Amino acid sequence: MLKINEHYLKLQASYLFSDIAKRMTAFQEANPDKDIIRLGIGDVTHGLPTACIEAFHSAVDEMAEDSSFRGYGPEQGYAFLREAIAKNDFQARGADISPDEVFVSDGAKCDTGNIQELFSTDAKIALPDPVYPVYLDTNVMAGRTGGFRDGRYQGMVYLDSTEENNYVPDLPSEPVDLIYLCFPNNPTGSTATKEELKKWVDYAKENKALILFDAAYEAFIRDDSLPRSIFEIEGAKEVAIEFRSFSKNAGFTGTRCAYTVVPKECMAFDSAGNKQAIHPLWNRRHCTKFNGVSYPVQRAAEAVYSEAGKVQIQELVNSYLENADLIAKAIGELGFDYAGAANSPYVWIQGKRDSWEFFDMLLNEAGVVCTPGEGFGKCGQGYIRLSAFNSRENVIKAMERIKKALA
Amino acid sequence: MLKINEHYLKLQASYLFSDIAKRMTAFQEANPDKDIIRLGIGDVTHGLPTACIEAFHSAVDEMAEDSSFRGYGPEQGYAFLREAIAKNDFQARGADISPDEVFVSDGAKCDTGNIQELFSTDAKIALPDPVYPVYLDTNVMAGRTGGFRDGRYQGMVYLDSTEENNYVPDLPSEPVDLIYLCFPNNPTGSTATKEELKKWVDYAKENKALILFDAAYEAFIRDDSLPRSIFEIEGAKEVAIEFRSFSKNAGFTGTRCAYTVVPKECMAFDSAGNKQAIHPLWNRRHCTKFNGVSYPVQRAAEAVYSEAGKVQIQELVNSYLENADLIAKAIGELGFDYAGAANSPYVWIQGKRDSWEFFDMLLNEAGVVCTPGEGFGKCGQGYIRLSAFNSRENVIKAMERIKKALA
Repeated sequence: MLKINEHYLKLQASYLFSDIAKRMTAFQEANPDKDIIRLGIGDVTHGLPTACIEAFHSAVDEMAEDSSFRGYGPEQGYAFLREAIAKNDFQARGADISPDEVFVSDGAKCDTGNIQELFSTDAKIALPDPVYPVYLDTNVMAGRTGGFRDGRYQGMVYLDSTEENNYVPDLPSEPVDLIYLCFPNNPTGSTATKEELKKWVDYAKENKALILFDAAYEAFIRDDSLPRSIFEIEGAKEVAIEFRSFSKNAGFTGTRCAYTVVPKECMAFDSAGNKQAIHPLWNRRHCTKFNGVSYPVQRAAEAVYSEAGKVQIQELVNSYLENADLIAKAIGELGFDYAGAANSPYVWIQGKRDSWEFFDMLLNEAGVVCTPGEGFGKCGQGYIRLSAFNSRENVIKAMERIKKALA
Repeated sequence: MLKINEHYLKLQASYLFSDIAKRMTAFQEANPDKDIIRLGIGDVTHGLPTACIEAFHSAVDEMAEDSSFRGYGPEQGYAFLREAIAKNDFQARGADISPDEVFVSDGAKCDTGNIQELFSTDAKIALPDPVYPVYLDTNVMAGRTGGFRDGRYQGMVYLDSTEENNYVPDLPSEPVDLIYLCFPNNPTGSTATKEELKKWVDYAKENKALILFDAAYEAFIRDDSLPRSIFEIEGAKEVAIEFRSFSKNAGFTGTRCAYTVVPKECMAFDSAGNKQAIHPLWNRRHCTKFNGVSYPVQRAAEAVYSEAGKVQIQELVNSYLENADLIAKAIGELGFDYAGAANSPYVWIQGKRDSWEFFDMLLNEAGVVCTPGEGFGKCGQGYIRLSAFNSRENVIKAMERIKKALA
C-alpha cells in the first residue's frame, strides 16, 4: 500500500489569493461599471526591456537552424550568463563571487523552495514573520514542523518583525540551524544595514548555522550605504547562500529566470561533526532534478547586463520606485504609519483595524485591491501591503480614490 | 549545528559522462585530424519546427508591450496549452483526460525527480534495470534506500530487463508500492503491448500500488497496436501518473517544456488506510515550489498541435526513425543482437564484451561515440546504446566507419 507524505496534510489551505479573487468578483458583479485597480499581487506590469526582447528574438532564430541549434545546455546555466552575473552583480560591488558559484534556474521560488532538501529533517528553522510563505510551506512539507496551532506551526522559530524593531528581526533567543532572511523584505519593504547583517553572519558562525538570504528585491535599493548582497559582509561566504531573480528588476515574472549563489566555502556538517561543503550537494541536486533554463531565456537575461540593458532596467526600477513614493506620500497624508517604499516596491501599512476589514474598505470604497497582511504571517495582522507594480496612471488614480474614500 | 541530508552521501559519483568526455578528449588530442561523430547522449540535433519558431517570436513580441505583456501565469500552465494537450494527446486516442489533469512543467526530468516527494519515505520502490538514472537517484536522495553494494542500492527492487524477457520486466516477486515504468524504454528502446501494461495496472490495483509511467518517447511508436499512453489501458487512471515531454518529438531539449498527467481518480493512502487523492497533493507542490513555464515557451509548445506543427513534428520524428533503421541495419549486418530502433530513437546493442571495451573500440577504430550500457544499471553491462539523434549524413558516415572497423 502506497502511503502519502502525510506532512502535506499539515499544510493550511492558502485561501489568501482565492479569497481576494472571490471578493473582487463579488464587487465587480455588484458594480459592473466600476473598474478595479490591482495593487495586490507583487507582479510587474511593464513590457520587457528592449535589449532583452532583441536578444530573445535573436536566440529564437538560432534555435530554428540545425547549424546554430542548442539542445541540452549545462544544468547550472551557460557560462555567458554565469560570468555576466558574477562580474556585474558581485565583483563590481567588491563581493568575490566566481561564475561557478552561480547556479541559474527558472525561479527564486523554486530555489528557495528546493534548498531545504540538502539539509537534515531535524534542522531547527528560523524565519521572519511576516514573510514570503514559500520558506515556511516547503519546510512543513519536508516534515520539519509539527501541526498548526494558534496561527503558527509547532517547532518553527518565528522571528517577529514589527514596528518596535523597525521590521528587522532580532537574533533568535534559542539556537537555530537554518535562518531565512529577506531584504528588502517582502512584504514589509524593510532593509537591513551592513551592521545588522554582520550580526547575523556572526551568529551563524558561532552557532554553525546557515543563512538563506533572499535578495530578489535588491534592485530597488536607492540608499548606497545599504548592502545589496549578503556577500558584501565579511565572512558571509562561509555561512550564507543568496537567491536572486530577474523577475522584479527586468520584469521576468512570466519569462522565468533567476539564480542562486552557493560559495564554495559555504559549509554544513555531517552527523560526525565534519564539515561538508554545500556547493557539491546543490550541484548534485541541480543536475539530478533540473535540466537548465531555456536557452533563449538565458540570452534575454544576459542582455540585462548589456550597456543598453542596464539603462533600461534602471528606468523600469525607477518607474516602480516613483510609484512607491506616490503611494507612501498619499498614505502618510492620510495619517497612516507605514514601512517600505524608500528601497522597495512595497508599502506596508498599519491599518489600525483588521487586515480583511481594511481590504474590504479599500475595495468597496475605492475600488483598489491590496493584500491583507495576515497572508504573510501572524505579525501581518492589522497590516495591508500595497504594491507599486502598476502603471503611473493607475497608481495616481488609485491614490486619488483612496484619499477621497478615507479622507 | 546545521546537518546535511546524509542520504546525498550514498549517491555514487556519476562518472559516466565525464569518463566519456575524458576519453573523447584524449582521442581528439592523439588524432587532431579525425572528426568524432557523437551518437552517445540522447539529445536532438535538428532545429525547432517552423510552426514553433513563429509562435515563439510572436509571444516574445507580446512580452515587449505593456498592453500584451504577461507576468506570472498559472503555475499549472496556461489553459490554451493544457487544452491542446488533453485533446490531441489523450482524448483523440480514446483516453479520457481533462485539461485540469495536465500539469505543464519545464521538464520531465524535473517531474520524474520531484514526484517521489508526495509519498512516504518508507515506500517500497521498484524500477527497471537498465533505465534512466533519475528515478533511482532521487529516491536515494530522499532516503528510500540503504547503501550501494555490488552495483546496486540496498532496499530497492530492481526489475531486470534482459534479452530473456525481451527487455520488458516481469512483475516483482515481492510487494512494492511505487513502480517506475518507461516505454518506449530509455535505453533499450523496447516497448510494451496493451496486454503487458494491463498486467501492471492489475498488479497496482491489487497491491494498492502506483505506476509512474514515463512516456517521453511515445512519438517514436510506429506500430499502431502499441499504446502511446498508459491511460489507453482500462482502469489505469486510478493507479497511474504519466510523464510526457516536448524534448524528443519537437526538439525542446534546450527550450524546456514538458507535462505530467495526474488523473483525479488516482489515489494513494494515509497511514490509517484512507484513500488520498494525489491530484491536490501534486497541485500543492507545483504551486509551492514552481512558478510556471515561460510564456513564450508555452506558446511554442502549443504550436506543436497546430496543423502545420503536426506535420513538421512527424517529419522530425520520421527523420530520426530512419536514422534508427540505418543504425539497426548496419549493426545487424555485423552480426550483433540488438533491441530498439523499430519504435524508438535508440538501438541497444549486445556487444559481446565489456561496455567500456566496446566504447573504446568504437571511438578508437571508428571515431564514433556511444553510451556504455552500464551507465543505466547493472543489467546494462555488456551493452552499448547508439542514439539516432544526429544528421542523416553523420549517421551514414558513422555506420560506414563502424562497418569498416568491425568487419
